[in-house]
Amino acid sequence: MSQASANLSSEATAPCATARALIEAGDPAADARALRRCLGQFPTGVTVVTARNGERLVGMAVNSFAAVSLAPPLVLWSIRRESSSAQDFLQAGHYAVSVLADDQVELSQLFGSSHPERFERARWQAGLQGAPLIEGAIAHLECRLEQVHEGGDHLILVGHVERYARFEGAPLLFTQGHYGVAQEHPALAEATPPGDQSAATELSDAELLRQLIYASQRLSLDFDSHRQALGLDMPMSRLVNRLREGACDPAELARATYLEPEEVADGLAGLEQQGLVCACGDGRVELSTSGRERQAAIAGSANHYMKDKLGQIAEADLAAFKRVLQALGHD
Amino acid sequence: MSQASANLSSEATAPCATARALIEAGDPAADARALRRCLGQFPTGVTVVTARNGERLVGMAVNSFAAVSLAPPLVLWSIRRESSSAQDFLQAGHYAVSVLADDQVELSQLFGSSHPERFERARWQAGLQGAPLIEGAIAHLECRLEQVHEGGDHLILVGHVERYARFEGAPLLFTQGHYGVAQEHPALAEATPPGDQSAATELSDAELLRQLIYASQRLSLDFDSHRQALGLDMPMSRLVNRLREGACDPAELARATYLEPEEVADGLAGLEQQGLVCACGDGRVELSTSGRERQAAIAGSANHYMKDKLGQIAEADLAAFKRVLQALGHD
Repeated sequence: MSQASANLSSEATAPCATARALIEAGDPAADARALRRCLGQFPTGVTVVTARNGERLVGMAVNSFAAVSLAPPLVLWSIRRESSSAQDFLQAGHYAVSVLADDQVELSQLFGSSHPERFERARWQAGLQGAPLIEGAIAHLECRLEQVHEGGDHLILVGHVERYARFEGAPLLFTQGHYGVAQEHPALAEATPPGDQSAATELSDAELLRQLIYASQRLSLDFDSHRQALGLDMPMSRLVNRLREGACDPAELARATYLEPEEVADGLAGLEQQGLVCACGDGRVELSTSGRERQAAIAGSANHYMKDKLGQIAEADLAAFKRVLQALGHD
Repeated sequence: MSQASANLSSEATAPCATARALIEAGDPAADARALRRCLGQFPTGVTVVTARNGERLVGMAVNSFAAVSLAPPLVLWSIRRESSSAQDFLQAGHYAVSVLADDQVELSQLFGSSHPERFERARWQAGLQGAPLIEGAIAHLECRLEQVHEGGDHLILVGHVERYARFEGAPLLFTQGHYGVAQEHPALAEATPPGDQSAATELSDAELLRQLIYASQRLSLDFDSHRQALGLDMPMSRLVNRLREGACDPAELARATYLEPEEVADGLAGLEQQGLVCACGDGRVELSTSGRERQAAIAGSANHYMKDKLGQIAEADLAAFKRVLQALGHD
């Protein structure tokens, strides 16, 4: 058995993984929303793709970006045919890709919207052909538009990279319908030899990091299963949490929950189907009575879970835990 | 100011982010490796794409997958022209995409290699047209090959999705040259209203999760900066750690460090340039004397950092912290 598989055996990561629970399956022609949820299982970064067409600047948040070839250097992304910017990108014959950093959620939302002052609100510099390069991004790729392919309701824009720049920082993620951040694979820390530092403190750096990641993943998974047991997926749960504060319109919901507009529409449709939200009539939606009850049930379940999980632990330990966690997370 | 931006202001996530440190920039034609590192800033999932061509099964790990269109349902990925499987994928006229879960690193490595017994070692079921569907994946997309486009040294294979399936589970990530896992965006927890559960314990579930994620990110970043201060990036650091155990060949290094073969080659080239590794002559490499010194310096620096960070904290608090962390991460 290889070194890697020996390291992984305790995490059941053998090639023969156990079968997973099926959520949904079928013919994508019958249910485009279900297909979108399925495609959302593939995590991506978030880019802002921009161009200057004459005097006009265009830009949009894009996660269909992919590398194609190193020599010649080619990348691609897809744009909806009906997008108001599609013609500008074609006419410009050039585009710039900015790969967003993990602290640029708001910028992603700004360029995911049709906000008329996107370029006034963002900080950028003009690159080749005047295409805006977003500041604070972790990579810039300036491309000459080389080929345009038909792709159903989209066009596939293949670009020849003329200039690249890489910056320090971690990427913003878009995964399973929501924003996220990337974390080192926790199993890797096990593959790291203990090193001289392990003698100095009971928790070596690698081991500490591994345990932090495991603990946060475990909590995330447990919270997920509570929501699911009560009929809500994560996007629905975020919407319910926000609506608890009062009626809200979809655009504000997207901003407050870090969900994409499509996810908000999808989640609201699911909540309406369960009778948990209702329309106010002014474009806003609010929780129904049973929506409020469901929210309380989820909060109660989380409460119960935390009591169970932490109940075994002495109050003093918990207080110490909080102090150490804060010391680690800051400075 | 919107709800979202108010929530984010404390994290400096305003659209006008501060400028980041540039690592490298230039003309990709001059340095394909630097371009690959730059493209690696865009995080992706990992898929295994398979097909059956007559009696022959082909399959490879692919991260150039992207969604294209919902109606009609189209996806794409790219394959190297010179790949031994390229003709089989074209002749099969069909392919299946399995989106790997976070516990399938070894499977990704298996299908990233040319191991002759890939399909004997993996667990799979035959789907449409006999294309293998990898078990334990979080999504399956079965596609009719619809278009093939030229893409430099690659071919772009656009497929029409004929059947999809979505499973429970979290995705495997590939980001900045290494495997990772996705974590909820820590800023989101701030946007979650406290809820009834916060009264029950000093640490509400959302707050606890947020602090765990912050702490693990902070540690990751700090470790990164130690490595960088000593002239090593993360892949180099992993290679040095593994080589500390003794001479090793590149394939074994890739398995043990969770790096892709290209990252291993890239990292070894960087280490050789600094005189930290040398070839054994039998295809393996080992640390040079100055490589061993550098490794010791990094371990010493991490040791010093942990002492500094944890030194302020009483031994008893640290022990309590460890107990709570283990309780949270397990069960």
